[in-house]
Amino acid sequence: VIPETPYDPELMAAVTELGSALRELVGVSVATTVGPAELRAAAARARDITSGLVVATRSSTQLPELDDPIAFRRVFSPGTGVGSAIAPPLRIRRVEAEANKAEVQAEVTLGLQYEGAPGFLHGGMGALCMDQLLGAAVIAANRWGLTVHLGLDYRRPVPLETPLVMRAWIAEELGRKTVLAGTIATAEDPYRVLVEASGIFVTPREEQMGAYFGAITNAAGEHAPPGRATDGTALDTGSDAG
Amino acid sequence: VIPETPYDPELMAAVTELGSALRELVGVSVATTVGPAELRAAAARARDITSGLVVATRSSTQLPELDDPIAFRRVFSPGTGVGSAIAPPLRIRRVEAEANKAEVQAEVTLGLQYEGAPGFLHGGMGALCMDQLLGAAVIAANRWGLTVHLGLDYRRPVPLETPLVMRAWIAEELGRKTVLAGTIATAEDPYRVLVEASGIFVTPREEQMGAYFGAITNAAGEHAPPGRATDGTALDTGSDAG
Repeated sequence: VIPETPYDPELMAAVTELGSALRELVGVSVATTVGPAELRAAAARARDITSGLVVATRSSTQLPELDDPIAFRRVFSPGTGVGSAIAPPLRIRRVEAEANKAEVQAEVTLGLQYEGAPGFLHGGMGALCMDQLLGAAVIAANRWGLTVHLGLDYRRPVPLETPLVMRAWIAEELGRKTVLAGTIATAEDPYRVLVEASGIFVTPREEQMGAYFGAITNAAGEHAPPGRATDGTALDTGSDAG
Repeated sequence: VIPETPYDPELMAAVTELGSALRELVGVSVATTVGPAELRAAAARARDITSGLVVATRSSTQLPELDDPIAFRRVFSPGTGVGSAIAPPLRIRRVEAEANKAEVQAEVTLGLQYEGAPGFLHGGMGALCMDQLLGAAVIAANRWGLTVHLGLDYRRPVPLETPLVMRAWIAEELGRKTVLAGTIATAEDPYRVLVEASGIFVTPREEQMGAYFGAITNAAGEHAPPGRATDGTALDTGSDAG
């Protein structure tokens, strides 16, 4: 278990509340059948909310105050972020698995806003979920890396508005490289695989870390690249996660 | 060129306006640094908008009034939907290519709400974009299918807030199967590939069409499965697209 940096619980509650409210709004916005006048009125009210939030913003190289790049707490992640209206959000947890085999799982029901072919999950949204699960399995093994390969076999369409189970586990650890596999199934029939994923995640080399994340800071302005709690890079961040 | 069914331009303008307003709001919601009280007030106002839209909704088997499943106009698609706050949205267009080679392209700049590793596009969002482009290339060739395989090689991280060029083309046509390839690059350096995609799309067999899309109707309640304008299935829809 990676120790997390402390955070402001009031801010976390408020970010979660806004994320939930916007997620619900996005879901309803694709299903509503109200007329043009009502839609335009809703748009005007949405722009008013935007005006109130845009008065103070972080730069794109500064992490959100609630984020922890070492414990991989990312509150606005489009896969898992409690503050992201795009994210389902996936609540990924470590599960009991065979000896030395890190395995993660998430249960989720996906709405109409994620539709591809009529009635079914967009293939790209299935890919987003699998990328997130595979990355979480890497972290669960106290490893870390960026996706260098993602392969998806869509065996059967994934139904919307249906409880799903998503799983991912490590197939092989090869130095900086982690090979993973994952699946999507319905909760009702968890062994009938709908989507099968494979992935390769690679820990960036030190010179790549500098090139990719050299400008990234935390909300306090300190250099805060992602990495494992055991990485030298992580120890440079000034966080108390190590 | 597939003839599109006509639509209500006032409704299209209103759906587009709300989609744009919510997309902007979602983008600002991940960047704002206002305090908990302001976030909670924004959440309350978002819930008010939701209350106004939820009074009338379509069922999940009924397509939106503006959709055309034959011309593949999908206004709430999480990849291309003008009414989707999740979608960038990708505006995919057919481009000049070698003889008999359907090729599509989209230019897009992606914001912080699509972030994976700090500063870069989430691998799963890159997959979503590529799945959408590959599917559009299939349609551009007057073919159609569901994703059965998607492979992504992430050669270099994809920067956010940077103009990108995404491309896809058909590599091979094998009966019901279409093999595709695609790329993501920056507009500044379009030949330096950041993400390379491959895909296989397959047109469902007739019995699969019934199993998958048997319950799908258009806003008028008529059976309206997806398909090509030249498909027998398409001619069953009662649309005037054929």
